Amino acid sequence: MENKLIRVGVIGCGAIGKEHIERLTNVVPQTKVVAVYDYVDKVAQDVAEKYDATSYASGEELIRSDEVDAIVVASTDDTHAGYAMECLKQNKYVFCEKPLALTAKECEEMMEVEAKQGHRLLQMGFNRRFDKGYVEMKKAIEEGEIGAPLMIHSAHRNISQAPGFETDYAITRVAIHEIDISRWLLGDEYDEVQVLSVKQSKRTTGDWLNPQLIMFKTNSGQRIDVEVQTDGAYAYDIQCQVVGEAGTLDLPDPATVVKRENQQVSYGLGDHWASRFSDSYNEEFLGWATGILKDQLVGASTWDGYASCVTSDALIKSRETGKPEKVTLMEQPEIYK
Amino acid sequence: MENKLIRVGVIGCGAIGKEHIERLTNVVPQTKVVAVYDYVDKVAQDVAEKYDATSYASGEELIRSDEVDAIVVASTDDTHAGYAMECLKQNKYVFCEKPLALTAKECEEMMEVEAKQGHRLLQMGFNRRFDKGYVEMKKAIEEGEIGAPLMIHSAHRNISQAPGFETDYAITRVAIHEIDISRWLLGDEYDEVQVLSVKQSKRTTGDWLNPQLIMFKTNSGQRIDVEVQTDGAYAYDIQCQVVGEAGTLDLPDPATVVKRENQQVSYGLGDHWASRFSDSYNEEFLGWATGILKDQLVGASTWDGYASCVTSDALIKSRETGKPEKVTLMEQPEIYK
Amino acid sequence: MENKLIRVGVIGCGAIGKEHIERLTNVVPQTKVVAVYDYVDKVAQDVAEKYDATSYASGEELIRSDEVDAIVVASTDDTHAGYAMECLKQNKYVFCEKPLALTAKECEEMMEVEAKQGHRLLQMGFNRRFDKGYVEMKKAIEEGEIGAPLMIHSAHRNISQAPGFETDYAITRVAIHEIDISRWLLGDEYDEVQVLSVKQSKRTTGDWLNPQLIMFKTNSGQRIDVEVQTDGAYAYDIQCQVVGEAGTLDLPDPATVVKRENQQVSYGLGDHWASRFSDSYNEEFLGWATGILKDQLVGASTWDGYASCVTSDALIKSRETGKPEKVTLMEQPEIYK
Amino acid sequence: MENKLIRVGVIGCGAIGKEHIERLTNVVPQTKVVAVYDYVDKVAQDVAEKYDATSYASGEELIRSDEVDAIVVASTDDTHAGYAMECLKQNKYVFCEKPLALTAKECEEMMEVEAKQGHRLLQMGFNRRFDKGYVEMKKAIEEGEIGAPLMIHSAHRNISQAPGFETDYAITRVAIHEIDISRWLLGDEYDEVQVLSVKQSKRTTGDWLNPQLIMFKTNSGQRIDVEVQTDGAYAYDIQCQVVGEAGTLDLPDPATVVKRENQQVSYGLGDHWASRFSDSYNEEFLGWATGILKDQLVGASTWDGYASCVTSDALIKSRETGKPEKVTLMEQPEIYK
Repeated sequence: MENKLIRVGVIGCGAIGKEHIERLTNVVPQTKVVAVYDYVDKVAQDVAEKYDATSYASGEELIRSDEVDAIVVASTDDTHAGYAMECLKQNKYVFCEKPLALTAKECEEMMEVEAKQGHRLLQMGFNRRFDKGYVEMKKAIEEGEIGAPLMIHSAHRNISQAPGFETDYAITRVAIHEIDISRWLLGDEYDEVQVLSVKQSKRTTGDWLNPQLIMFKTNSGQRIDVEVQTDGAYAYDIQCQVVGEAGTLDLPDPATVVKRENQQVSYGLGDHWASRFSDSYNEEFLGWATGILKDQLVGASTWDGYASCVTSDALIKSRETGKPEKVTLMEQPEIYK
Repeated sequence: MENKLIRVGVIGCGAIGKEHIERLTNVVPQTKVVAVYDYVDKVAQDVAEKYDATSYASGEELIRSDEVDAIVVASTDDTHAGYAMECLKQNKYVFCEKPLALTAKECEEMMEVEAKQGHRLLQMGFNRRFDKGYVEMKKAIEEGEIGAPLMIHSAHRNISQAPGFETDYAITRVAIHEIDISRWLLGDEYDEVQVLSVKQSKRTTGDWLNPQLIMFKTNSGQRIDVEVQTDGAYAYDIQCQVVGEAGTLDLPDPATVVKRENQQVSYGLGDHWASRFSDSYNEEFLGWATGILKDQLVGASTWDGYASCVTSDALIKSRETGKPEKVTLMEQPEIYK
Repeated sequence: MENKLIRVGVIGCGAIGKEHIERLTNVVPQTKVVAVYDYVDKVAQDVAEKYDATSYASGEELIRSDEVDAIVVASTDDTHAGYAMECLKQNKYVFCEKPLALTAKECEEMMEVEAKQGHRLLQMGFNRRFDKGYVEMKKAIEEGEIGAPLMIHSAHRNISQAPGFETDYAITRVAIHEIDISRWLLGDEYDEVQVLSVKQSKRTTGDWLNPQLIMFKTNSGQRIDVEVQTDGAYAYDIQCQVVGEAGTLDLPDPATVVKRENQQVSYGLGDHWASRFSDSYNEEFLGWATGILKDQLVGASTWDGYASCVTSDALIKSRETGKPEKVTLMEQPEIYK
Repeated sequence: MENKLIRVGVIGCGAIGKEHIERLTNVVPQTKVVAVYDYVDKVAQDVAEKYDATSYASGEELIRSDEVDAIVVASTDDTHAGYAMECLKQNKYVFCEKPLALTAKECEEMMEVEAKQGHRLLQMGFNRRFDKGYVEMKKAIEEGEIGAPLMIHSAHRNISQAPGFETDYAITRVAIHEIDISRWLLGDEYDEVQVLSVKQSKRTTGDWLNPQLIMFKTNSGQRIDVEVQTDGAYAYDIQCQVVGEAGTLDLPDPATVVKRENQQVSYGLGDHWASRFSDSYNEEFLGWATGILKDQLVGASTWDGYASCVTSDALIKSRETGKPEKVTLMEQPEIYK
């Protein structure tokens, strides 16, 4: 498939779906969006017209179409698992937005099907694995620059949320990035996780819990703390410090200009993940295209989607019990090692 | 007493005692060291000769001497309480190194005596309250620059320890600074504290636990995490970030020169608290002298020494039980409010 | 032409030419390299084969081909003017590497031809105008964030040069970026420029002058100083501080990870312009493609290429005379205003 | 004199004089202010009363008094030379504020007298030589950390000036610090200096020239540029970058707290030299006291005062002629080598 243009079908044409279509069109030379589907028919038709693509009557039809080589799933959370499973069954490449599924069981079934197909077909939308900063951190860790990693201190702060936000989303939609990136940086799985209650912020616009303090312990005893502010924070700001025996690594602030004015030195921070991680989204889709052309997918796998599901479940349980909860994973299938 | 030179007696002429004597002599114009005592007689005599002071046969004798206006207690940890109590009974000003006592009960007795004397006589050696960075942070918090404070993320990292170091010292001698400064920054007392086990560093030179991760929860629900590396760290490095509803405050690195060389931008970090906090030690003793001259002591009080004792005890217990432990303080006496 | 794929011919398949071809192929979805030429025939043929393009017998033939919509000129410096002029005569879009020409006269002739064609056809390869940092700086200046700009302090430091480097190249190939970007940031033309001799670096591997200190004065009296190290510097490092009446703007270092290790805080700097300005090269070609599709070229124009030629000449003369030299520009044609 | 308290007389009790008296009293244990003089008698008497000192009828009387061991000259610029000379004749230690004199000739006469006394008696008030940052820079240069130094880029920016400010003061009172510190950092004397005109700031509150751009060339060809903003700048801000063959050294900003708030990361800058360089003033007077007690003065000497006078004169001439002007120094007397 090396030189072919990858014909992509996109399921879900909301904000994120549209952003993905734009990228696949204007950033990734190896892909062309040829098919779209949205449960609101009109939305799909408008997008189809704009990008010279075909609008399909259902996601399943789109997935099975001979016109479509690979699928992007950017529909509502509850539909991810169904579409992703259909792609795997059709032996088609799929890029699936987080979360992979609402239950760990669905993830397990997907892994079974993918294993039978004999090669990786699914890439999870964990874009931070393509962020230059995180990539350099992982490289530095693996090259032993800070000795054995022992801890991660991190923070995930947001200015606002779309209407309808709920307490659990702080885990399933927000901290899920730290769930994935911390495992990836440390190369270990979680043993035990906990949500700690914190004094609440009066700047929260709804009635969900904010902030929350999340703790992970890996199998080798590494500790990760994640401060999660889902609303009312001063900026969209992501902090990450990996602490090793011999040193630490920090993600720097994404400053573009430093200003001196009015007795102050300052630089700006963004307001949204879309701008903060824009480059990583580009790299993520470029990586996906290259992975497809070589039949060697990179990025987060179905296993990673599964691990983040199980961890999210344990965190939600911990919030309810007020105690640490175990993360119990199945044996890792060969294909993901 | 406004214009008098304060005649100081120093009990304990080890490394820290000598450093204090040097400061009282060469940095603080309002004090003169006139009396010294050490349980090793020869050490005291040498110091007495060097600084033109009198060597006393016992700490008690020094405290009671008419020659001595104020006392610095820098002897071994187990003797602090006895000397401090004697000073209070003699109605003399005392600067006491941490910890104030080995038991909370002794602290309570001291507070009773001090209250009877009717004015503050004791200043604890919590130097960070005089560090420019922490002082500015507290001011910014109190002026509402970051809204209500919700969390503190901090780290206390050391390159090495003197021989004989033990696991509990990570709390009673190291994290005790964070115990005090976090209460001070937030203006609240602790409700519950916990020690979390962490993957151990192979760079530890002895058999004590290192690192340890320490968690505090205040009465209003604020959370503080303190990473404690007592040995093998890349530098003596202190980090502190206060997280408020509307912003955060960070202690900057104490850089003196920034170098660009060999494809790198860098600045140095120190190897020891003595250099890192040198200015704060100066300010601490200058503040003590001024406090004495005005009979209005500043800095950490007997109450603060007591609170840090009770908190240390709860942390040590938590390390043993593996669970959060309550911090239960007596009613705060009027004199400390 | 809005939805057409732009068929690009590349003249010059050396290091820079190859990098441009790679970008036009793998980064810019709107372009396809269909034609190449190099004065070493074998080189052109290899590249043609690799990218599925046609190798031409001459640059002129390539330019005139009906197969080719737009041309990239990345050949040796002395051939730029000839190829660019031919493109303009053929009314074809051209991306021309710096310098535009070896003489100001050639630039004037090009502007005459371009003006007759009635629209901008040429974009100069001044990539920094597409760098996020410089773009933000210009925006901040124009929004009045630092008041009227008065000065720029800048430095352009290189680790090494290809064999055959000469003293004048410090201006025509290195500082030419500062010649262009400073004019662009300030929105003014130069009145007078000067090269100042400086103590020489023993790390220079050849016999050219290094470093050189370059000074510009604009028509409104703004001063720009540019330190130029062409060899032996600690890194490829670009510094730029714009000083306004009310504040300053600095280009920050492009740090990806900050490390604490061995009593030091550090982050890495790159060794080459290709990595330091990689993103800006992407943006530059994406911008070129969009400009072509809209027939509204952006980026540096033939006028800018002309201004940099005249300024380079004045600087070279100043180095010889040891005095400031005037920069005298013709009246600016309407088309570039 | 090793253990004696140094009895200091202060001539000039204006803002700076008072600040010095305060330091000598409350920061330097080895000194006591016993005598004061001011040409406004009432001012001197008030100060004398406050600090328990004697008010003298003239500066000369104070200098000659047996009560006075050492003198601080903080009177108006035109009187420095006379008082300093009298101190030297009386073989008394003197701390003299900049400038040392209004003419180079007076400096030469002082050096003659001091040489006859056979030891250094005079310390110039160039406080930056005691600033931690500059001290570390000089140490790093001397240890070869950046190879041979080739250039210095520096800026000296002020928010405001006292009434009566004039164009020349930008050199004699402001840039004089860079005149001294650059020579000291590089260990070389100036060959040629120049003032370049710059676009003027509308934020200047008077009619003097602001900003000015000042250039020095040392005997070995090193170049120094100094941007001088005497009024209207965003803060009191001092920048200094030493550029060596193998690296650079920068003075970091004196941040005490870093704030994240309102989509911005920021830290404050001061408004005045008094706070920016407070520590260096402390060190300067502590160093003076120690120097006196050991009869080995440190800090800037009469020679340094002379060199800065000659350089100032050449700069003022350059501003008038619009050309570089030579700096011609006499042979350096043995005593200053």
